[in-house]
Amino acid sequence: MNRLYVSEDLDADLPLTLGKEHAHYLATVMRAKAGDQVLLFNGRDGEWRGKLEAVGKSAVTVELEAQTRPQAAEPDLWLLAAPIKKERIDLVAEKAAELGASALWPVFTRRTVMSRVNTERLGAHMVEAAEQCERLTVPAVMEPADLDKALAGWDGGRALLFLDESGGGAPLAQVLAELPAGPLAVLVGPEGGFAPEERVLLSTLPFARPVGLGPRILRAETAAIAALAIVQAVRGDWARAPRS
Amino acid sequence: MNRLYVSEDLDADLPLTLGKEHAHYLATVMRAKAGDQVLLFNGRDGEWRGKLEAVGKSAVTVELEAQTRPQAAEPDLWLLAAPIKKERIDLVAEKAAELGASALWPVFTRRTVMSRVNTERLGAHMVEAAEQCERLTVPAVMEPADLDKALAGWDGGRALLFLDESGGGAPLAQVLAELPAGPLAVLVGPEGGFAPEERVLLSTLPFARPVGLGPRILRAETAAIAALAIVQAVRGDWARAPRS
Repeated sequence: MNRLYVSEDLDADLPLTLGKEHAHYLATVMRAKAGDQVLLFNGRDGEWRGKLEAVGKSAVTVELEAQTRPQAAEPDLWLLAAPIKKERIDLVAEKAAELGASALWPVFTRRTVMSRVNTERLGAHMVEAAEQCERLTVPAVMEPADLDKALAGWDGGRALLFLDESGGGAPLAQVLAELPAGPLAVLVGPEGGFAPEERVLLSTLPFARPVGLGPRILRAETAAIAALAIVQAVRGDWARAPRS
Repeated sequence: MNRLYVSEDLDADLPLTLGKEHAHYLATVMRAKAGDQVLLFNGRDGEWRGKLEAVGKSAVTVELEAQTRPQAAEPDLWLLAAPIKKERIDLVAEKAAELGASALWPVFTRRTVMSRVNTERLGAHMVEAAEQCERLTVPAVMEPADLDKALAGWDGGRALLFLDESGGGAPLAQVLAELPAGPLAVLVGPEGGFAPEERVLLSTLPFARPVGLGPRILRAETAAIAALAIVQAVRGDWARAPRS
């Protein structure tokens, strides 16, 4: 069954018409027909099963039949990632969505080679991954910022674990075991790692802690994916099973 | 400094000549010159620093100067993975090497769509990843086999955790906490998951346990990468730092 992220409100009493983009996907790509069922979610109203009523190339009308899952709380886990080349940052976005990150924030560090990042493309990857992996939300893509500025405006109630490829931090699993419950963020640098002055700045911030990811030097995207998986497994929502 | 995996013995008293493939890489791709230093490892003799003596297009001679790291024990962690499409299985191979898997074993399951797998290409990806991530070994690529046969010849001393996308298993972190020390293997199915009869077979095997990876349905490659990271973080070698 097709599963789509939509912006419209989902409520059995409201008529639902999906616009051009979804109509193209359903009618042309998936060759859906009137009577076919779909699953819909919008990040607010849980997941709904709907029946396609009229399928056109520019609009599709849907009759919502039943809510299949209620909206539920999700881990508050941000990923701050220095932009890296296209294939690798796209992978990070896709996997961040699968692994349940709540937001992706591209941050420019001293050694970041990329001078810009296409947040629209990253968002599209995350929508697709969210649709496939059955989440009820899509991670937010935050406005790219310089790391210094992101840190200057930081809410100290959110712990920031920065993946320290220099080996300066305690092992991630150990830090997670010691960390009080609360909002969390993981920060991964670019391929060249953090600059010494960034390391110094981070060490002065009470909310930030360096963490280690073992004896091998991980590529930036591997570090990001590994860290998100470990956070979810150790203190995230991985005690739950699919559709439980 | 270039870091290369070689097959030759590494010993200060032995003359070392690298053949065509490495010569091409060093001379043509990296434009290395006599006098340049390299790091070399072969999976047996630790890591050595060498100085290039003569750089030709078909051979390079190296003077080994010093052993920079001794060979050390590594986690005995296999990844059994059903072949998936090229980009995704290549990614699994690369990340398995970065995350310290000791072997990659392609296994054909009932729902595996791919009918063959290029082990040479997977091996090349793992060599490149091993060179970059500073490990002292390259994971073995085992002869592809049907899952049934792999299980029939299984050494019961190695625990097998199969990533059960149906939600039938306890969370991976919980299973790892209960598992006695010893050799381990992680088994990931293809995009379609395991067939019911495979699940039944696995449930009868005393060495096999289903494990869960949380509430979202992970793609096969994400499940493989996440599981390896969690195993290493929770009971592998991630208490160590790079070059420690």
